[in-house]
Amino acid sequence: MPKFQTIRGMRDFLPSEAEKLRHVEGTTQQIANLYGFKEVITPLVEHYDLLSAKSGDEITARMYAFKDLGGRKVALRPEFTASIARLMATALRNQPKPLRLFSSGTLYRYDEPQFGRYREFWQSNFEIIGSPRPEADVEVLSLTKHLLDTLGLQNYWFKIGHMGILRGLLSKEGVTDEQQNTLMQLLDTKQMDKALKTTKEIGVSTKGIATLQEILETKGKDASKVLTSLKETLQKYPDSMKAAENLHKILQLTQDSGIKFSQSIETGFARGLEYYTGMIFEVLIPEMTIALGGGGRYDKLVELFGGEPTPAIGVAHGLDRIALAIDKQNLPSKSIQETTAIIPIGEEATTQALKVALQLRGRGIAVEFEVMGRTVTRALQDADRRKTTFALILGPKELKDGKIVLRHLKTHKQQLVDIKDVANILSERID
Amino acid sequence: MPKFQTIRGMRDFLPSEAEKLRHVEGTTQQIANLYGFKEVITPLVEHYDLLSAKSGDEITARMYAFKDLGGRKVALRPEFTASIARLMATALRNQPKPLRLFSSGTLYRYDEPQFGRYREFWQSNFEIIGSPRPEADVEVLSLTKHLLDTLGLQNYWFKIGHMGILRGLLSKEGVTDEQQNTLMQLLDTKQMDKALKTTKEIGVSTKGIATLQEILETKGKDASKVLTSLKETLQKYPDSMKAAENLHKILQLTQDSGIKFSQSIETGFARGLEYYTGMIFEVLIPEMTIALGGGGRYDKLVELFGGEPTPAIGVAHGLDRIALAIDKQNLPSKSIQETTAIIPIGEEATTQALKVALQLRGRGIAVEFEVMGRTVTRALQDADRRKTTFALILGPKELKDGKIVLRHLKTHKQQLVDIKDVANILSERID
Repeated sequence: MPKFQTIRGMRDFLPSEAEKLRHVEGTTQQIANLYGFKEVITPLVEHYDLLSAKSGDEITARMYAFKDLGGRKVALRPEFTASIARLMATALRNQPKPLRLFSSGTLYRYDEPQFGRYREFWQSNFEIIGSPRPEADVEVLSLTKHLLDTLGLQNYWFKIGHMGILRGLLSKEGVTDEQQNTLMQLLDTKQMDKALKTTKEIGVSTKGIATLQEILETKGKDASKVLTSLKETLQKYPDSMKAAENLHKILQLTQDSGIKFSQSIETGFARGLEYYTGMIFEVLIPEMTIALGGGGRYDKLVELFGGEPTPAIGVAHGLDRIALAIDKQNLPSKSIQETTAIIPIGEEATTQALKVALQLRGRGIAVEFEVMGRTVTRALQDADRRKTTFALILGPKELKDGKIVLRHLKTHKQQLVDIKDVANILSERID
Repeated sequence: MPKFQTIRGMRDFLPSEAEKLRHVEGTTQQIANLYGFKEVITPLVEHYDLLSAKSGDEITARMYAFKDLGGRKVALRPEFTASIARLMATALRNQPKPLRLFSSGTLYRYDEPQFGRYREFWQSNFEIIGSPRPEADVEVLSLTKHLLDTLGLQNYWFKIGHMGILRGLLSKEGVTDEQQNTLMQLLDTKQMDKALKTTKEIGVSTKGIATLQEILETKGKDASKVLTSLKETLQKYPDSMKAAENLHKILQLTQDSGIKFSQSIETGFARGLEYYTGMIFEVLIPEMTIALGGGGRYDKLVELFGGEPTPAIGVAHGLDRIALAIDKQNLPSKSIQETTAIIPIGEEATTQALKVALQLRGRGIAVEFEVMGRTVTRALQDADRRKTTFALILGPKELKDGKIVLRHLKTHKQQLVDIKDVANILSERID
């Protein structure tokens, strides 16, 4: 007998969960459309070398990697970005900019399973490629807010930072890119003390460490207040200063354009992926500790993959996490679609009932045709259980008269209607 | 530098192809809805033992199988059915029947890549579980036709057979199930002579071989004619006779119910998967040699996986193949969605233009916001190239007057409109 469990960290979505997940996914597609993004679909299996190139050691070590039957070293994608960067270096290399690319599907990481974190997880991914300007950053923040609003999520907030503030200081202090990546991962996993200790060991100046400490501690809701105060302490670090100004500009433009959301500006906020260079953000709700989505600017990524130097900014939304958030906030799920059960009695009625089914479906009405040959009573019981809206019952007598019984399953009221009118009647009653 | 090719046999879908594939997939979801199917989503990675249990040696040998970091032997699913059977033996075991289950996504087989056959391919899968009756078979044929009609495909035809006809004869002649599976695979790959030779070697009677040969040669468009003639020769094989009657009944009911399609009844038609027991079919178009979809009845599958004995019938539609068929038949693709480019001139206008973008998107109008800071001329050239429908241009002068320029990009006509009216104007002009 085969093994009946799913793989540890992976799971089935039964109909009600699957519907929620598809609703979230469909909403991201709708947002992609509204913001002018075009979908690209890349394979789930890619060359190991591609996927491991820029993901950072942590992710690479936890990839589902293997050799295929042709001996190629391959892996399941742990994120979309490497595949998008591959496209930018090949098929889309000569496309005029900007490109607004959308992707959606499953990703795989061999992490320890925990609440909301699975080894197979779902993301929708948006990238604006080719624009270094704050408008692009604003668009990505705006579409994220638009998505959450469309789904009805409440009390979400944006945690916002800028990789350039930290990196500008560290570079000026002579910290190498590799050392910086290690530090960013420490900060991403909230190991502040270890990060400060490591910085000291590297030999950063006392002034540098004091400034770093101030950056790590600076946070607040008001972008102007937070960033204006910080700029004074960044006098000696022009790249950090530029970064703070860039972040200030993005947030000012967002606010002035009427894109409103709760926010916490945290200049010590870092994200683990090595390729971020500019503004970074995550979106959270009070009910969950894990982020619903996150992204940022990575102006060097395409170049690192051998493409032309190309500024880019992106965001990934965790579809299964958002579905979980919808549960956590007890949001009303999508209105249940109305369905009509068709129940024939006897063989002759079956043929006619199938004709009615065909006609109704042609008018966009969802039909559950009775395929069990049950009695009307049992078929109706089952339809009740399934929360079917209407039942159409066709017996030999009704058939002879060209009639059919239309029963409303909630009220148990029923009426005899002409078979030829039934599609019209249901079309009017079903939205 | 990482490798930039996709894995052999896998491919990218750039926007126009991705749109086609999603259109086909969306249409299958719409059909699932009309026919009362509920989606379940199962993991792409499953235990090797599960996937190899009933797929047959040919498919098992070509699975993407590997050990994960925890030492589990796993594989990428080569089909949906094993996962659905797993659900039927576990989470859905006690659900009242019938169940109508829908699944959609990618599957993986290490086959030799050729026209229309990829190592990563897309299917939508429909299963009606719990009904042994012809109505269920009719529903599956009907929804397949409905799908192809909705997509506008022309000249498609159904190739239809019944596994019970061949298996009834072979069982009566003492051919074991395993030998039968080998024979079915020979027939599926059109190796008729080898199949007949093997049958002789197994020791099937002369009468049996003559009957087999007749079954293999019997085909025609008229179900009554084909099956009535065949029944005479099946006198000695009651199970084959019952199968022919079952097929006859299904096709009669289909025809009488007004579900019309071109068909070829071929009683020697076999499908490679071992679990089929009843009616089987494929759907083809003249422009392609590979089937667009196929399915059939497999009443023993759930039992083989340790579930209750459960009759079932299903069909899988090849989404990427259908997208290819749409190309081959030069069918008009989905009408292109109308998009509006918004182009601000100067910083002050940018803020106001972002407000307009927000307002338009709130009304369901797709907007490409100018994120490159280009001159109006260059931004309009780009919008032309992208086949954008309208452009809204907002300069300092218009801004001062509360106006915005609305330009129709095909006609190059433009007019000055009040900013406050622009959403209404575009809502009316864009469907």
